[in-house]
Amino acid sequence: MDLQFTSRTFLAADFPYDESLAVIIGCPLDISSSFRPGTRFAPQAIRDASWGLETYSPRLDRDLEDLKICDVGDISLPQGNLEGALEVIQGSMTAIMGDQKFPILLGGEHLISLPIVKELTRHHHNLVVIQLDAHADFRQEYLGEPLSHATVMRRIADILGGENVCQLGIRSGTREEMRSARAMGSLSEVGETLRRAAGRPVYLTVDLDLLDPGIAPGVGTPEPGGLTFDEVISLISQLSPLHVVGFDVVELSPPYDPTQQSAMAAAKLIRELILQFYPDKSHQ
Amino acid sequence: MDLQFTSRTFLAADFPYDESLAVIIGCPLDISSSFRPGTRFAPQAIRDASWGLETYSPRLDRDLEDLKICDVGDISLPQGNLEGALEVIQGSMTAIMGDQKFPILLGGEHLISLPIVKELTRHHHNLVVIQLDAHADFRQEYLGEPLSHATVMRRIADILGGENVCQLGIRSGTREEMRSARAMGSLSEVGETLRRAAGRPVYLTVDLDLLDPGIAPGVGTPEPGGLTFDEVISLISQLSPLHVVGFDVVELSPPYDPTQQSAMAAAKLIRELILQFYPDKSHQ
Amino acid sequence: MDLQFTSRTFLAADFPYDESLAVIIGCPLDISSSFRPGTRFAPQAIRDASWGLETYSPRLDRDLEDLKICDVGDISLPQGNLEGALEVIQGSMTAIMGDQKFPILLGGEHLISLPIVKELTRHHHNLVVIQLDAHADFRQEYLGEPLSHATVMRRIADILGGENVCQLGIRSGTREEMRSARAMGSLSEVGETLRRAAGRPVYLTVDLDLLDPGIAPGVGTPEPGGLTFDEVISLISQLSPLHVVGFDVVELSPPYDPTQQSAMAAAKLIRELILQFYPDKSHQ
Amino acid sequence: MDLQFTSRTFLAADFPYDESLAVIIGCPLDISSSFRPGTRFAPQAIRDASWGLETYSPRLDRDLEDLKICDVGDISLPQGNLEGALEVIQGSMTAIMGDQKFPILLGGEHLISLPIVKELTRHHHNLVVIQLDAHADFRQEYLGEPLSHATVMRRIADILGGENVCQLGIRSGTREEMRSARAMGSLSEVGETLRRAAGRPVYLTVDLDLLDPGIAPGVGTPEPGGLTFDEVISLISQLSPLHVVGFDVVELSPPYDPTQQSAMAAAKLIRELILQFYPDKSHQ
Amino acid sequence: MDLQFTSRTFLAADFPYDESLAVIIGCPLDISSSFRPGTRFAPQAIRDASWGLETYSPRLDRDLEDLKICDVGDISLPQGNLEGALEVIQGSMTAIMGDQKFPILLGGEHLISLPIVKELTRHHHNLVVIQLDAHADFRQEYLGEPLSHATVMRRIADILGGENVCQLGIRSGTREEMRSARAMGSLSEVGETLRRAAGRPVYLTVDLDLLDPGIAPGVGTPEPGGLTFDEVISLISQLSPLHVVGFDVVELSPPYDPTQQSAMAAAKLIRELILQFYPDKSHQ
Amino acid sequence: MDLQFTSRTFLAADFPYDESLAVIIGCPLDISSSFRPGTRFAPQAIRDASWGLETYSPRLDRDLEDLKICDVGDISLPQGNLEGALEVIQGSMTAIMGDQKFPILLGGEHLISLPIVKELTRHHHNLVVIQLDAHADFRQEYLGEPLSHATVMRRIADILGGENVCQLGIRSGTREEMRSARAMGSLSEVGETLRRAAGRPVYLTVDLDLLDPGIAPGVGTPEPGGLTFDEVISLISQLSPLHVVGFDVVELSPPYDPTQQSAMAAAKLIRELILQFYPDKSHQ
Repeated sequence: MDLQFTSRTFLAADFPYDESLAVIIGCPLDISSSFRPGTRFAPQAIRDASWGLETYSPRLDRDLEDLKICDVGDISLPQGNLEGALEVIQGSMTAIMGDQKFPILLGGEHLISLPIVKELTRHHHNLVVIQLDAHADFRQEYLGEPLSHATVMRRIADILGGENVCQLGIRSGTREEMRSARAMGSLSEVGETLRRAAGRPVYLTVDLDLLDPGIAPGVGTPEPGGLTFDEVISLISQLSPLHVVGFDVVELSPPYDPTQQSAMAAAKLIRELILQFYPDKSHQ
Repeated sequence: MDLQFTSRTFLAADFPYDESLAVIIGCPLDISSSFRPGTRFAPQAIRDASWGLETYSPRLDRDLEDLKICDVGDISLPQGNLEGALEVIQGSMTAIMGDQKFPILLGGEHLISLPIVKELTRHHHNLVVIQLDAHADFRQEYLGEPLSHATVMRRIADILGGENVCQLGIRSGTREEMRSARAMGSLSEVGETLRRAAGRPVYLTVDLDLLDPGIAPGVGTPEPGGLTFDEVISLISQLSPLHVVGFDVVELSPPYDPTQQSAMAAAKLIRELILQFYPDKSHQ
Repeated sequence: MDLQFTSRTFLAADFPYDESLAVIIGCPLDISSSFRPGTRFAPQAIRDASWGLETYSPRLDRDLEDLKICDVGDISLPQGNLEGALEVIQGSMTAIMGDQKFPILLGGEHLISLPIVKELTRHHHNLVVIQLDAHADFRQEYLGEPLSHATVMRRIADILGGENVCQLGIRSGTREEMRSARAMGSLSEVGETLRRAAGRPVYLTVDLDLLDPGIAPGVGTPEPGGLTFDEVISLISQLSPLHVVGFDVVELSPPYDPTQQSAMAAAKLIRELILQFYPDKSHQ
Repeated sequence: MDLQFTSRTFLAADFPYDESLAVIIGCPLDISSSFRPGTRFAPQAIRDASWGLETYSPRLDRDLEDLKICDVGDISLPQGNLEGALEVIQGSMTAIMGDQKFPILLGGEHLISLPIVKELTRHHHNLVVIQLDAHADFRQEYLGEPLSHATVMRRIADILGGENVCQLGIRSGTREEMRSARAMGSLSEVGETLRRAAGRPVYLTVDLDLLDPGIAPGVGTPEPGGLTFDEVISLISQLSPLHVVGFDVVELSPPYDPTQQSAMAAAKLIRELILQFYPDKSHQ
Repeated sequence: MDLQFTSRTFLAADFPYDESLAVIIGCPLDISSSFRPGTRFAPQAIRDASWGLETYSPRLDRDLEDLKICDVGDISLPQGNLEGALEVIQGSMTAIMGDQKFPILLGGEHLISLPIVKELTRHHHNLVVIQLDAHADFRQEYLGEPLSHATVMRRIADILGGENVCQLGIRSGTREEMRSARAMGSLSEVGETLRRAAGRPVYLTVDLDLLDPGIAPGVGTPEPGGLTFDEVISLISQLSPLHVVGFDVVELSPPYDPTQQSAMAAAKLIRELILQFYPDKSHQ
Repeated sequence: MDLQFTSRTFLAADFPYDESLAVIIGCPLDISSSFRPGTRFAPQAIRDASWGLETYSPRLDRDLEDLKICDVGDISLPQGNLEGALEVIQGSMTAIMGDQKFPILLGGEHLISLPIVKELTRHHHNLVVIQLDAHADFRQEYLGEPLSHATVMRRIADILGGENVCQLGIRSGTREEMRSARAMGSLSEVGETLRRAAGRPVYLTVDLDLLDPGIAPGVGTPEPGGLTFDEVISLISQLSPLHVVGFDVVELSPPYDPTQQSAMAAAKLIRELILQFYPDKSHQ
């Protein structure tokens, strides 16, 4: 047939996989969330929302249509089997990294970052993880469980060392979490983060609850008192000197987003992150 | 990559186009609706809902997985240009019919049936159209316009002759509409319909407002006092002796379906229609 | 203080635990659901809805206020640890049964019935399980997992033998599931069920998707074509000769119930089940 | 200006007041509701929904456009002052009756029927009130208050005598309410009602919770197990021999009606009631 | 009757048409929207929301009750006929301008500004149009169509010349749109706008997506990163020296505004615009 | 039983009443609201939302778990009887104050502050009331009624004298209200408030519509142009030198809060208020 069809990939991310430099992959993990579930629907909600945006960013004067990106869809995860699901996610990273693609992961809950970072450490020496988040996610365990959205950054710090994790924007945690994060040196600020990460490969994980619930109410655990959209963009912008080798955006919960405003915010943030950190800078 | 991905086609409809016998195509027309808009989102909502169902029908003891069906997605339609959009829909039918596929159309508003039937008359001699609907859709014009969801069956009757249209389940219309439909002989009942359509090619158009608003509230114009889901299935079942050459399911409006119940009803109805009227009967 | 407070227990279920004959306990398990999550919020939604009902049933001419029932609240479950959560649920049953109470369990997803039945077999010889449900839940495994809402009745049949499970109302399943259920003898009808269960201890598990999605849209997996509320009550009524030793009501998903109609249906169904099967018949 | 404007009256009810035979008036009382509030928004929601219907009823072969009806809008009620509000409602009835109009009242909560009936007794000798409702609304008092949506029919029975009230469809009440209603002779059935009301002036009050919550979830107190829309129409139809002198339709709660299905049911029911009981029968 | 009724006009805008200086008219155009429909319901949603506000503005120390404003309601538009609908809108402007009223238009989609401006150029020499908007709406064509919400300002610039259009707040556009707007000189800032428009008749068109989606999620195309309500008021305030001869507020989409917050923002903005630009300044 | 249950009190407020220093009590008054009802559901919605927060505040470095707080639940109020309900609320205050507890009241509508303040004047000499609110609530009467959410602060000023009421954040009122408030000296600013209230017992009443509707849309009367969450916290923080002897948080309306964002904001605000003003400072 010679007809034009609408796409259900992320905005303009329909380049052939083999020729793409960047790959978008949905990780609809939704098992350990303790407050509100629904992140399983996030990748598709972000894709659907993205078509309400332009491909062009006036801020950066760059356009997604100039880039080679392939959105491969959502991986299938075994329900109710947390460890099995984490293995599948890590396996998808093995595949992407083996094909030398720039990985863009759409959560799902925050725990997806653990297998992603595990795999990345096998490909990038001296990795730094920068976390933009409302919550420290730094518990030793949560309700007796070591693997949870509430412990994920602690597990990552256990692997990389706390000094190789930079936590920005944190406005909530238990007293014990905050102490541990301070003790391990992961709580950070922008200037400090730029110093620590300079010249090193950086993985960026963005929890959408960094945004104020007024901007993005549809997240697993809304935390009042967050950033505006422009403040998040400004933060991202300050990180532009860094060598980002991949990123994820997590914790959107579409059942709590009746106006689609949270999904729109996620989609625009991802557009800006792609345009800013896309590995081939020749278009700029 | 060697990973398993979730599909966004209709349930089990991911067979290669060239080898498929039946083709699903979304027609997100949403221009002439006079009461509540939103049918543009219907095809995708039906696809997403369909994965909550099984591929197997205990009623028919048949399974979608045994069939060769390709869901090609939604065609792009020019916004605000009603006649242009109808041409694109007719063009998509030209393509499908040229490839000798069994067409399954997902609306969009009811007006999509007009270009579909226009094209079908070029491929099937002596065509009968059976309409399952709450509303007669039989006005001469609506707010001065001859092309509208409220006039579509009259336009089809103008082409085929009223005696070649069978309207079932109609429970709403203006006095004038009801008189015209009676005069042109299109208002029908099941027995009469079976007699008239016997041995002839049949196109079936199902407006979801046939269902009671309690079952399917998410439609353009809910009309209280409709059928239960099982009553619709029973009606479909009585039509099983007929030679159906294609069908559409129209008027789902997802913004008015917060529980997804209307999309689930649409998806299950489509599953049953496919399993019942699929052209190759060798699996049964 | 000498003030009157509103209760957050189930309607009229605020008798002291020690003196109660029946105990209501919420099991907010919400881990293995494959389609729509949210059952974790069900027990509280049912409690809140129940206060819109009367304590008195005109059908039975009995009143909850005459009974000794204690609603102990929801048990805390470890997030993301399916097996651990099932152990906690079984532990709560051990406690209730040790205190010789009539157990009333509010799901949560359907998998809660597995640890409950496991424990019941230790207290009741020759137990029969009657399942009222739209779905067979009889898969050997689901997405590779043996423990799931989609396998729960198969696991129970593995323990009790298929002939000691009676599945009523099933309108959905894979071809393989239906074959297995038929082969193991669990698919049943009311007459057959009454014969098989006569004189034996009966555990009843009610999946709310037995109801038509028009009546109860807020469930994990709505299946079009279900029963009306009165048809379910009639079914329950026919089971009244049986010796029911406990029951659960599962799969309500409040995020998909914006009108509260599903929670109201659940609450009224529970009221009728309690009034019908309460162990002390002296009030009737 | 010579332009056409859309109307916000009830469907086709824009005849000049002075020449109208029937008058529609909104009574947005929303004070004593004990479960879910929101009936204050009902009259406008019904008007907005009504424009999704036709003016013509195939059942009756009559058309609203042939009738002389004036929708005067909603009366302003003093907030928080229950007795004052009831006086205003009675005052509006005094005005309508003084102008010899057929009164059609849109609630608001059920308590509006009390001042309406009080005023009607001054204009019609030997009045009968027929109540179509899920709940008896027959308490002596509710939470210590004699005036409440839960006591309204008892207050009316106190005025008229229980034998002049006919309660149809009641499926919920306290044991005490049911006993009182039985003792006072108000619980009735269709045949009995036709006998009792024959040849007498009849006021009809319809509580929308008569409908099953699957059909009309957006009511103050949904009661599972109600009538379908066609069953209500059939009930109305059986009452057609009676001399109805006015009616109200109450208890719609739009905040719990996200799909508008309850408002559509209310609007269509009102259309059928008007076409059936309109005082001038010359059009039929 | 001598009763008080609630009004469904815009807040306090119930002055007789003939004596009014300003006229509010709803233009529920909802045809060319490409992302989310629903603007047809906007004028009524704004009117309903307005009654939650006071008539008095502390910022301006002025009160709507002192002004002579008539809200005439919504004009009827032919469904599915874009050009016909634009003609009706222009006709309504002809009528208002012929009666020498100050026009206040409530969209509907942004395309309504085209026929309005066309008509205004016949009454005001040297007109300037100021656009407050997130999107440039400056495409040469959209999906092949020259008339669309996405091309409206380009069409207006084609008529007036780009130098007579001042675009403020634009944060989204294609690369080509931004270039064209820059080339035609329409992209502007407040100071520049004040200079250009000084002493000339000004028409103001406000697209509500200028506001951040956190403030006004219920718009056709939410664009993250917008202004707060107070920032919009401040912008309006800076324009107070100008001679505004009419304005419109467009693109509210009530189906995506479950909390009514967007409609409230629209209504308050309109109140402030009226109080600031009302033609008779003698009350200030 | 030896099982762990989830709590339905406010976060961590499950200390035994007798040993508690502070008491939380829900006052679900919802009678006089003129725009949108629903505040009756607020206390429970706040409690449910609170469990999505941590007990620890990084801002204050204090933890709810260190405090002795008892949440006693919601008092039962007589429906439709405004004066009776106010008496019950005052009675509950008599009880709490008699037991020498620090009172924390969860509305309900704003009118609850009137009986609370009445009772407090019997226990605290020289009381100052500080109101944080969008609306002045300072009418002499509203729709003829002296007792209303719109008159509550005027009634309190009538009791205490306007100079002993400090109104902060007011951005809406009638011209007359603003004049009266200015004349009675109640409109205030932070500095002035600190001066006036220094060394005196202070009662704080917080209307959630102080927050911008983008942050907290789910209130009775959203008023565009409000404060961000951090601005409210900053305001609270500036009041920390004062001797606060109790507070209320009012006007949350859960039916208009589909994302739970308003309830989360209320819950976090209450956490911060408790941690800041808890009477025993020894933990700090």
